[in-house]
Amino acid sequence: MRRAAMLFGTVIVGVADSRAKRPFFTMTERVDIAREVLKDLPNVKVVGFSGLLINFIHEHHARVILRGLRAVSDFEYEFQLAGMNRNLYPDVETVFLTPSEQHMFISATLVREIATLGGDVSKFVHPLVRDKLREKVLALGGS
Amino acid sequence: MRRAAMLFGTVIVGVADSRAKRPFFTMTERVDIAREVLKDLPNVKVVGFSGLLINFIHEHHARVILRGLRAVSDFEYEFQLAGMNRNLYPDVETVFLTPSEQHMFISATLVREIATLGGDVSKFVHPLVRDKLREKVLALGGS
Amino acid sequence: MRRAAMLFGTVIVGVADSRAKRPFFTMTERVDIAREVLKDLPNVKVVGFSGLLINFIHEHHARVILRGLRAVSDFEYEFQLAGMNRNLYPDVETVFLTPSEQHMFISATLVREIATLGGDVSKFVHPLVRDKLREKVLALGGS
Amino acid sequence: MRRAAMLFGTVIVGVADSRAKRPFFTMTERVDIAREVLKDLPNVKVVGFSGLLINFIHEHHARVILRGLRAVSDFEYEFQLAGMNRNLYPDVETVFLTPSEQHMFISATLVREIATLGGDVSKFVHPLVRDKLREKVLALGGS
Amino acid sequence: MRRAAMLFGTVIVGVADSRAKRPFFTMTERVDIAREVLKDLPNVKVVGFSGLLINFIHEHHARVILRGLRAVSDFEYEFQLAGMNRNLYPDVETVFLTPSEQHMFISATLVREIATLGGDVSKFVHPLVRDKLREKVLALGGS
Amino acid sequence: MRRAAMLFGTVIVGVADSRAKRPFFTMTERVDIAREVLKDLPNVKVVGFSGLLINFIHEHHARVILRGLRAVSDFEYEFQLAGMNRNLYPDVETVFLTPSEQHMFISATLVREIATLGGDVSKFVHPLVRDKLREKVLALGGS
Repeated sequence: MRRAAMLFGTVIVGVADSRAKRPFFTMTERVDIAREVLKDLPNVKVVGFSGLLINFIHEHHARVILRGLRAVSDFEYEFQLAGMNRNLYPDVETVFLTPSEQHMFISATLVREIATLGGDVSKFVHPLVRDKLREKVLALGGS
Repeated sequence: MRRAAMLFGTVIVGVADSRAKRPFFTMTERVDIAREVLKDLPNVKVVGFSGLLINFIHEHHARVILRGLRAVSDFEYEFQLAGMNRNLYPDVETVFLTPSEQHMFISATLVREIATLGGDVSKFVHPLVRDKLREKVLALGGS
Repeated sequence: MRRAAMLFGTVIVGVADSRAKRPFFTMTERVDIAREVLKDLPNVKVVGFSGLLINFIHEHHARVILRGLRAVSDFEYEFQLAGMNRNLYPDVETVFLTPSEQHMFISATLVREIATLGGDVSKFVHPLVRDKLREKVLALGGS
Repeated sequence: MRRAAMLFGTVIVGVADSRAKRPFFTMTERVDIAREVLKDLPNVKVVGFSGLLINFIHEHHARVILRGLRAVSDFEYEFQLAGMNRNLYPDVETVFLTPSEQHMFISATLVREIATLGGDVSKFVHPLVRDKLREKVLALGGS
Repeated sequence: MRRAAMLFGTVIVGVADSRAKRPFFTMTERVDIAREVLKDLPNVKVVGFSGLLINFIHEHHARVILRGLRAVSDFEYEFQLAGMNRNLYPDVETVFLTPSEQHMFISATLVREIATLGGDVSKFVHPLVRDKLREKVLALGGS
Repeated sequence: MRRAAMLFGTVIVGVADSRAKRPFFTMTERVDIAREVLKDLPNVKVVGFSGLLINFIHEHHARVILRGLRAVSDFEYEFQLAGMNRNLYPDVETVFLTPSEQHMFISATLVREIATLGGDVSKFVHPLVRDKLREKVLALGGS
C-alpha cells in the first residue's frame, strides 16, 4: 500500500465484510487496524464495504483495481478475477504489484496459526497487528 | 460438453451427489439444469450418481473419463486423480480437454459469489443457470 | 520416512494434534499407525505434539525440519513455511525430499474419499492403514 | 498498450535492441511496426534502446515499469526481474497487466513458426505485422 | 501411443521434420525407430511431415490432435498451442493424455545428456532407442 | 553452500565442465571463484568434473545429492532429475534446500545480462564474482 500510494494520486483500501467466511477480525477491526497502520499516508483512505465490488468501485469513482501477486497460486485466481472484472466493468483496469523480498514468505494463514498457538509473530507483522492478534487469541480462549 | 459430443459416440455427464460438500444446487437441480441446457445434443446423457466413480463407470460400460483442464492448479489435482484411477481401473483411460478462450476466466466460485451478492452473471453462464442462481439466492434469503 | 532414516542418525516423526482441523484419525490413532508401520526402523521415533513446532523442535534438540514435496502447490506452501521458520529459528534448517514415482499420484484426500465411499485403497496405502480406514468408516456409519 | 495508455499520462514503449538474441525483426523494424500500429494513441511514444534499462528509464524520467503477465512461467521470470529492478532502482516501481482473453493464447514463438512455414497468422496479429512477417519470410527464402 | 491406440480407431504418429531445431535424430531416423517400436499396433501409422500441421491434418483427414501432458510447463505451452489451433482449425479438437507413473520422470533432454556422456539409459527407453542413441553418440565422436 | 556446510560432515561442490553449453566462465574459472568465496568453510571442497555425475559421486563416495530450489520451474526440472537419478543410483538420495529471501530474486541469467551491458551487480553477487564478471566482459570486448 505504501508503494501504491506513491504511484497513484488517491488509493482507497477496500476492506471487504466477508462475514460469510468468518474472518479472524471483523470488518470494523480490520478497518481500524489498517487506518492506524497507514495513518501517515495522506492519500490513502481505508473504507469497509459489503456487497459487490462493482458498486464500491462506482461509488468511489475508481478506475483501477490494484492487487498484490505473491505466488503462482495467487496468479491463477487473480487472473480469473481480473478476466471476470474486465467483462463486467470494461472501463476499470486491474493492475498488479509484487511484494518486496522481506514480505514474500509471509502467509496470513501461517501468521494466524502461530499467533493462535501463542507464538511470536513480531517479525512478520506490524506491532499493532501483533497486539491485536494477541488480544483476539486471549478473547477466544486461546493460549 | 458440446465439443466432447462431437468427439465421442456417446457422452454421459455424471453429476456427483457430493452431499457432504454442501453444493449450492442439489444433485437433482444440477441434473435438471444440465439436461435442459444440453437437450439439443442427442448423444449426451445426464445422469446423477452417488458412491464410487468406478461403479458408475462400470454400470454405464464407459471406457473413457473425460475431464476439463483450465489452470495449473487443476492440472495437479487432475494429474493425481488420473494416476489413481489408472491404478484402480487400468482399462479406463482419462483424457483432457481445455476450455476455449471465452470460457477460460470463468470460475464457478466467483460466479456464485457474484450471484449471492445480487450481481449480474449473465455474461458468464447460460440464461437458465442465471435464473436458477437468482431463484436460489432469493430462496436462501440473499440480496 | 524410510529414506530419511538412511540419511540421518535419528528421525523423529512429529504427529501434529491439529484438533482444530478435525482430522480423520485422532493424533493418538495416527501415532499408533505410524509406530506400527515404521517399527522395523530403529532410528525412527514417532511422537505426537500440540502447540508450536518450535517448542517441539527445541524439546527434541532437532536441527533439521524434513518435509516432502510432491506438487507445485506443495512447493509454494512449503516455501513460505520454510521462509517463516528460517526467520523464527535461524539455527534450524528445512530440507526437502521428493516421493518416488509409485507414491507420486497418491493424494491423502482422494484415498480418504475412496475409503469413505467403500472403495478399495489397498493399492495406495499400507495394509494397516487400509484396515484402520475401513474400521473408521464403519464407526462413522459410512458404507 | 492501449489499456496502458488509458491508465497513465504518458507511456513509452521501449523496444530493446537485443541484437545478441538475433530477433526476427531488427530493432528499427520493430520500432516502425509499433509506431504504425499505435499511431492513434497520442500519449504513447515508441523508442528503441540498447544498453541498460536503468539508463533508458532515467533518460526518460520514467517512474513505472509496466509489464504484461500471461502465464505462470512469465510470472516467475517477471518476478525475479521486478525484484532485481527494485534493488537496483528503489524509486521505480514495476506494475503488471494481464491480457484480455482474445490475446491469451497468442504466443509470439508460435506465430513466427506458423508464418515461417507459410501459414496464415491474420487471426493473431495486426494486419501490418502479418504483412511484415510475410515479407521477412520471403526475404529469408522461406515458403 | 499404446494407450491412444486403444482409444481411437486409427492413430497417426506425426514426426515433424524440425530441421531448423537440429534434432538429435533426423526425421527419417525417428520415423524408423517409431515404426519399429510400434510395429505390433496395427491401427498406428507413423508418418514424417514438414510444413504446417494443418496441412498434415487435412491430408490425413484427422479430427483430433492428441498430445501428452507431463509437467506444468508442458501445460502452458500446450494450452497456447491448443488455443491457437482451435482458432485456426475450429473443426479439429485437441485432447490430452497424461503419462503413467513409470514414465513421468523421463525427460528426453536428460536421456540424451546421459547417453552423450556414455551413461546407461536402458531403464528409461526402449532397447532399440538405447542402441540407436549409442550408435549416434559414437558417430558424433562422443564417449 | 554455507547452510549445507552446517548440515553435513563434508560437502563437495561439483563444478560441471558443461563445455557444450558454452558457460560464461570456464570450469577452471568457476572452480577458482568458488574456492576463493568458500575458503573459510573447512568442510567444503570444490572439485571440477566432466562426464557422468554418477562417476563423480562414486569417486567421492557421496551418499546425498544436494540441490537448490528457487522457483516452480526449477522444481519440475529438479523433480525429473531426482527421479531419474533415483532410478540410476538407488543408494544415493537427492535432497533440496530453498534460498533465503535475500537470494530469492537473483537470477544468474539476469546478473550476467546486467554485467554484459556494463551495469553494477554488486548488490547481487560476492565482490569477487563482480570483479571476475567485469574482467570477463572487458576481455570479450563488452562495455
